[in-house]
Amino acid sequence: MEESRLSSTTLPSAEETPPPGSRRFGLIAKWAVVLAAAFAVVLIPPPEGVAASSWRLLAIFVGTIVGSIVRPAPGGAVVLLGVTAVALFGALSPTEALRGYADPIVWLVLAAFFISRGMIKTGLGRRIAFLFVRAIGHRSLGLGYALIGTDMVLASVIPSNGARSGGIIFPVAKSIAEAYDSRPGPTATRLGAFLMPLLYQADVIICAMFLTGQASNVLIAKFAQQVTGIELTYGRWLLGAIVPGLVSLLVVPPLLYHLNPPEIKHTPAAAEMAREELRRMGPMRLPELLMLLVFGVVAALWMTTAFHGINYAVVALVGICVLLLSGVLEWEDVLAERGAWDVFIWYGGLVRMAEALGETGLTKRFAEAAAGFTAGWQWWAALGLLLLIYFYAHYAFASITAHATAMYTPFLVVILAAGAPAHLAVLSLAYLSNLDASLTHYGTTPAPIWFGANYVTQRTWWRLGLIVSVPNILIWITIGFAWWKLLGWW
Amino acid sequence: MEESRLSSTTLPSAEETPPPGSRRFGLIAKWAVVLAAAFAVVLIPPPEGVAASSWRLLAIFVGTIVGSIVRPAPGGAVVLLGVTAVALFGALSPTEALRGYADPIVWLVLAAFFISRGMIKTGLGRRIAFLFVRAIGHRSLGLGYALIGTDMVLASVIPSNGARSGGIIFPVAKSIAEAYDSRPGPTATRLGAFLMPLLYQADVIICAMFLTGQASNVLIAKFAQQVTGIELTYGRWLLGAIVPGLVSLLVVPPLLYHLNPPEIKHTPAAAEMAREELRRMGPMRLPELLMLLVFGVVAALWMTTAFHGINYAVVALVGICVLLLSGVLEWEDVLAERGAWDVFIWYGGLVRMAEALGETGLTKRFAEAAAGFTAGWQWWAALGLLLLIYFYAHYAFASITAHATAMYTPFLVVILAAGAPAHLAVLSLAYLSNLDASLTHYGTTPAPIWFGANYVTQRTWWRLGLIVSVPNILIWITIGFAWWKLLGWW
Repeated sequence: MEESRLSSTTLPSAEETPPPGSRRFGLIAKWAVVLAAAFAVVLIPPPEGVAASSWRLLAIFVGTIVGSIVRPAPGGAVVLLGVTAVALFGALSPTEALRGYADPIVWLVLAAFFISRGMIKTGLGRRIAFLFVRAIGHRSLGLGYALIGTDMVLASVIPSNGARSGGIIFPVAKSIAEAYDSRPGPTATRLGAFLMPLLYQADVIICAMFLTGQASNVLIAKFAQQVTGIELTYGRWLLGAIVPGLVSLLVVPPLLYHLNPPEIKHTPAAAEMAREELRRMGPMRLPELLMLLVFGVVAALWMTTAFHGINYAVVALVGICVLLLSGVLEWEDVLAERGAWDVFIWYGGLVRMAEALGETGLTKRFAEAAAGFTAGWQWWAALGLLLLIYFYAHYAFASITAHATAMYTPFLVVILAAGAPAHLAVLSLAYLSNLDASLTHYGTTPAPIWFGANYVTQRTWWRLGLIVSVPNILIWITIGFAWWKLLGWW
Repeated sequence: MEESRLSSTTLPSAEETPPPGSRRFGLIAKWAVVLAAAFAVVLIPPPEGVAASSWRLLAIFVGTIVGSIVRPAPGGAVVLLGVTAVALFGALSPTEALRGYADPIVWLVLAAFFISRGMIKTGLGRRIAFLFVRAIGHRSLGLGYALIGTDMVLASVIPSNGARSGGIIFPVAKSIAEAYDSRPGPTATRLGAFLMPLLYQADVIICAMFLTGQASNVLIAKFAQQVTGIELTYGRWLLGAIVPGLVSLLVVPPLLYHLNPPEIKHTPAAAEMAREELRRMGPMRLPELLMLLVFGVVAALWMTTAFHGINYAVVALVGICVLLLSGVLEWEDVLAERGAWDVFIWYGGLVRMAEALGETGLTKRFAEAAAGFTAGWQWWAALGLLLLIYFYAHYAFASITAHATAMYTPFLVVILAAGAPAHLAVLSLAYLSNLDASLTHYGTTPAPIWFGANYVTQRTWWRLGLIVSVPNILIWITIGFAWWKLLGWW
């Protein structure tokens, strides 16, 4: 499954297509792995006191997660198969199996995807990018920060990192690189080879900073609540991330500038180009103004939920209604937003399966068993080791969602069993779930877009990702922990 | 809202576009009507014992229905606004307001739309049409019946009458008419002017025959269950309709052949063309065979629910899973099926609002009040009069859904209050909800497609529709009533 999907652009593919015969064999092998995982659970006799239907639910859940990782089919399809299996084999009643699709948090994400469409359609996203570039884009590092700033502003509402980083920031970055005659090949190092990894690495940090940073953060928040009861609201997520996030954004770009410098250091033409583009766009027209208004009001209401208590999803739906009523979005735009429907299906299915699994008491039993594993450990040792394993396991995942769905809850349970403070465990795992996407060129949806622009080799991409992971982890577990202590969260 | 929507074809539009100024004025006027309807309810003080939140729900429901009728925005958008208003104004909690989207019956419809996509994609729908035409398409009336037969076979699974009648039958009919040099204008009466109204009128009868005849039949079944507890299963719907439906299909086509004869009576070229097309298609390939298998198994399982008890939605979802696993459908096909998402939004919203309204007890109170209105009437007089009003009210509706949502429940309640047998009232209103679409060129989704082919004038279309309504009503209330008596249903 993907954290998001561009709905109308074709992504540059980083994969090679193997010959059909071997592809079919690969496909069968993948399905075999998925089925084997599910059957392995079925074959184990359920522990005493666990209903057969609960055990079947676990088997299907395991199969679904393994399917999300090995991907014999698109993630959404795998989850739909899982939901169907849950209903077909009576692990849950059909109504219960489908209940995730009525979960307000799922509708929050759906609505936010429609809001992203409005940002792209009205050109507001591009305008914000050009305003930043015009202001601070005179030098190449400043130019990078201009686009990072745009990404951060947009992430406050747009949970589709594909639409945001890939759909809005990437085209601007690419056209600026090309304006400096920097294209894949010998001229790559002029500018593009610097910008592409930089903006991806920064996006990963930004993903971690907002509940809306990427689509599966809300899923992580659900998991956290199911295990610990701690509610990662929009405001709390942001408050916890703001200090370590800003420090990361201050440290990582200069580091990359040092490790992987562009030949062109001064980029007056970028600022000039932004000025020109803004001139061409002219003043804001009514639809764009309305979009800005909705964007601002929705973000403000999300940040202040504690004061007014209006449900997140209702806020987002009201935003969509305003956009529809004013004609900024057409109904057809909503229906054609395939990425939104993709997320809707996988997210609604996973949320419900995980929730139902919690209700069976299996998670609690697992926690009890896990307590033995870390018995006698200091909690900080358990926390440290497990965070590292969790982080670098992302080499094996092509999506934050798949990774978090498979590992967030069990790791959280084990860390808690070792006696770690709940907030510390919940938050560090949540943020690192995003930061670990730095490692590869397939770590989260926009990765293949930035990498696929072909400015750097895979070797460079991976080397930079690995290097960046070190300061990121250090910043979030030192400054982050200190900040949460200061906030009195542990 | 639309009973269905073609997802990739552009429909010939039967509407004229007024100048922008008057359009904006018209739009404001329409919204004013919607708001006035909702506020009218708000201004009436709620009857004693009715919670303020229930009364607000009624106001929003009334606004949504009026919106579905006057259509200031597409039907799906109107319902989404309604759902948002329900949550925003606290008529229901957000989770409760969204609960329709987890209703298995809503997922049944969603899945059935995806199945339709497979029918079109694999060419199975066209093949069935050509097989019928080759067998009995040698004379123009037989040709009509060939396409009517196809429509009926497909209606057993495809609830999108737009995709079925408009997307599969219409293109075949049009190409046959053109093969006989019958085009809009002087040559229309050669063949096309006969085929177009015929196939639309027959489709309307077919819509009435299956729970899957068109998308809002499941909505009607929900309403019926909420008021009377009678469950209109797939099998029961079909059993009740099969006798009057077949009689209607035996009577109406010859009647139209008599009233509106084609100049060309013999159509050997149609059969020849079908033979040629079938030759060109070659034998069935694996995807089409799989599609046929899924189609057959799903229909068979739906008809036999009473014996195995597998939920309809689960059957349909398993069908989709098979199509996805076998590669007949790609995940992308599912995501891009905009018509399905449209129906999902309006249907899930309406089902829930109507259900919640039932839970408030307002429907029951209305029934008590209505009992006074028909006090002293014979039940058959009340039934007859109200059925006629219900039927011809469809002149004012551009969609079966809008009509049924606005009128089905109140009319049912009033008829029951007069003492009519429950089954009789439930079934006759359900079937007539479909049959009344015969009247106009906008009565249900495929109407503008068939009419828009431009073979007959609006005057002719309406005249034929009005004439056909007479035998249809007579057949269903005489033979239909007798048949249901024979079945012991009243």
